Amino acid sequence: MRAAYMYGPGDVRVIDAPDPRIEVATDAVVRTVVACVCGSDLHPYHSMPVEEAGRSMGHEMIGVVQEIGAEVRTVRVGDVVIVPFVFSCGTCDFCREGLQTSCRVAGLSVPTGAGGAQAQFRRIPFADGTLYRVDVAEDDERMPGLLTLSDVYGTGYHAAVTGGVAPGKDVVVIGDGAVGLLAVLSARQLGAERIILMGRHAARTDLGRRYGATDVVPARGEEGIAEVRDLTGGDGAHVVVDAVGHLPAYEQALGVVRDGGTVTRVGVPQYSTGPVGRTQFARNVTIAGGVAPVRAYIDDLLPGVLDGTVDPGAVFDRELPLDEAAEGYRLMDDRAALKVMLRP
Amino acid sequence: MRAAYMYGPGDVRVIDAPDPRIEVATDAVVRTVVACVCGSDLHPYHSMPVEEAGRSMGHEMIGVVQEIGAEVRTVRVGDVVIVPFVFSCGTCDFCREGLQTSCRVAGLSVPTGAGGAQAQFRRIPFADGTLYRVDVAEDDERMPGLLTLSDVYGTGYHAAVTGGVAPGKDVVVIGDGAVGLLAVLSARQLGAERIILMGRHAARTDLGRRYGATDVVPARGEEGIAEVRDLTGGDGAHVVVDAVGHLPAYEQALGVVRDGGTVTRVGVPQYSTGPVGRTQFARNVTIAGGVAPVRAYIDDLLPGVLDGTVDPGAVFDRELPLDEAAEGYRLMDDRAALKVMLRP
Repeated sequence: MRAAYMYGPGDVRVIDAPDPRIEVATDAVVRTVVACVCGSDLHPYHSMPVEEAGRSMGHEMIGVVQEIGAEVRTVRVGDVVIVPFVFSCGTCDFCREGLQTSCRVAGLSVPTGAGGAQAQFRRIPFADGTLYRVDVAEDDERMPGLLTLSDVYGTGYHAAVTGGVAPGKDVVVIGDGAVGLLAVLSARQLGAERIILMGRHAARTDLGRRYGATDVVPARGEEGIAEVRDLTGGDGAHVVVDAVGHLPAYEQALGVVRDGGTVTRVGVPQYSTGPVGRTQFARNVTIAGGVAPVRAYIDDLLPGVLDGTVDPGAVFDRELPLDEAAEGYRLMDDRAALKVMLRP
Repeated sequence: MRAAYMYGPGDVRVIDAPDPRIEVATDAVVRTVVACVCGSDLHPYHSMPVEEAGRSMGHEMIGVVQEIGAEVRTVRVGDVVIVPFVFSCGTCDFCREGLQTSCRVAGLSVPTGAGGAQAQFRRIPFADGTLYRVDVAEDDERMPGLLTLSDVYGTGYHAAVTGGVAPGKDVVVIGDGAVGLLAVLSARQLGAERIILMGRHAARTDLGRRYGATDVVPARGEEGIAEVRDLTGGDGAHVVVDAVGHLPAYEQALGVVRDGGTVTRVGVPQYSTGPVGRTQFARNVTIAGGVAPVRAYIDDLLPGVLDGTVDPGAVFDRELPLDEAAEGYRLMDDRAALKVMLRP
């Protein structure tokens, strides 16, 4: 099969790779309908060490079940399925609590040996717990929206939920990538009225306004903090979403959060330590968020995607064949594309 | 009047100071019935720079209203009042939300010029918003318990509340000082069943068991983390209270919190940066807590103190005359006393 691999900074190639196959009875193999490039894929694109064997890339996809192991019960060959970006058994206590990212047997910290989603086929461990069957044809026009349920929409929603967004709350979202924009949409769905989007790319922030942003602040750092404080009567916002992950974004988040408020992070932190001391303590600032258990949110978010109430698929502004994945990375890295969909 | 001042590390003296007086119409002057030494007073006791003028000390007290300004409406001369450790106007939005520590005109960050509580008399700014009248005589035997409502009980309760303690949750409390012990009591009141107290002073941890601790772990650091993980099936606890404030305690808290759980801090951090990066993010760990708005909790906590359901006053294991305040500091610093009450 064809599959995208990354070999070092800026070095993505689509190669011929072995077809995946059922390895244990709880596996399924899915054929990719749509996949995409994630903002988080750009971190290794900038900084990964050169690796001769390369890394199989991609973690977002919709597929069609091609084959199932003997113990798979909840999906059948031919089903169209959403594949959340973290696998999960569906039965352990963490899965039952809705924290599938910490699944005891298939979560984020458990190596599964499965390849990436930017490929023609993919082996899915714990198919019963991981896959979410959706009753659409594989050429359904809502495919871009459905694809966001495998990561970015669920991740934006996780930010809004863990930040405690509710009617009457002011919200700031830092970052105008797909996750930031879908955090805006999610905050709106949870009742926020004032939503300030901090981003500087007009095409993106325009989509942010469509999703519900009431204000856009292009400035960053101290200047950006001052502008947001001006917009919020000097206080900052009840909920601040960091959808970036770099330390300056976290620091900016601390600068625009109201006393007693919450900074919630859904951009993968590119740092291990940061401000978390007496200043935050004196202001009763809570630091929340984390890797999103998107599997837990599909039940809530799917109906709006299917009935057209929301249009999260609008974050995809380019589509390329899988064989041009390298161009997809380049476009996103250059910010010439917001989010690139790939079709095998 | 007599008042305790600190002049440098280990240097506390009780001196003759000017009597406080009404300065603005919203002030009251209270006569101290009981005051005490706080664990947080030991931070400057260890490390404050030598200051010739000294610092007026103490922030916990019960008093009798001695005089009121022309605009004071809710207390009268002769009332016995609890004085929360942060002043508050009672009418701004933060006060109405129950975050009096961020009060816009009298909160933690607003210099008020008021002296400390380890004194015969004290000027109380914004008496209407700050003081809490309680219908007892000044020689009431429940005075120690009432005194804890001015700080340590409310602070322990803030930990339990902001940590999200609820029935079925496992809780770890790090620190066997008065705040840690009252966090144990508070966690028990909010329904926690498993409460693990990390502390090494048997007299204190025995009181912790009386307050509801089910397990005591004297070990610290990696050893302590391993023991708590053993006690919790390898997972750690849903809620971890850091009632210490030093960086190793925070690191220890991160080591014993369950994925998806909350570390809540009520010990004043003695650091400005710390671990708050990818490791915590991957585990969806929330960092909560902060300076406790104890004024907000008196309504909830007072009835149990008055009717004897709880005995938070048991944290006071020594009583000294105000003139021996220096000895009180020494006893607490040597850990020969858990918490020292002072009477003028």
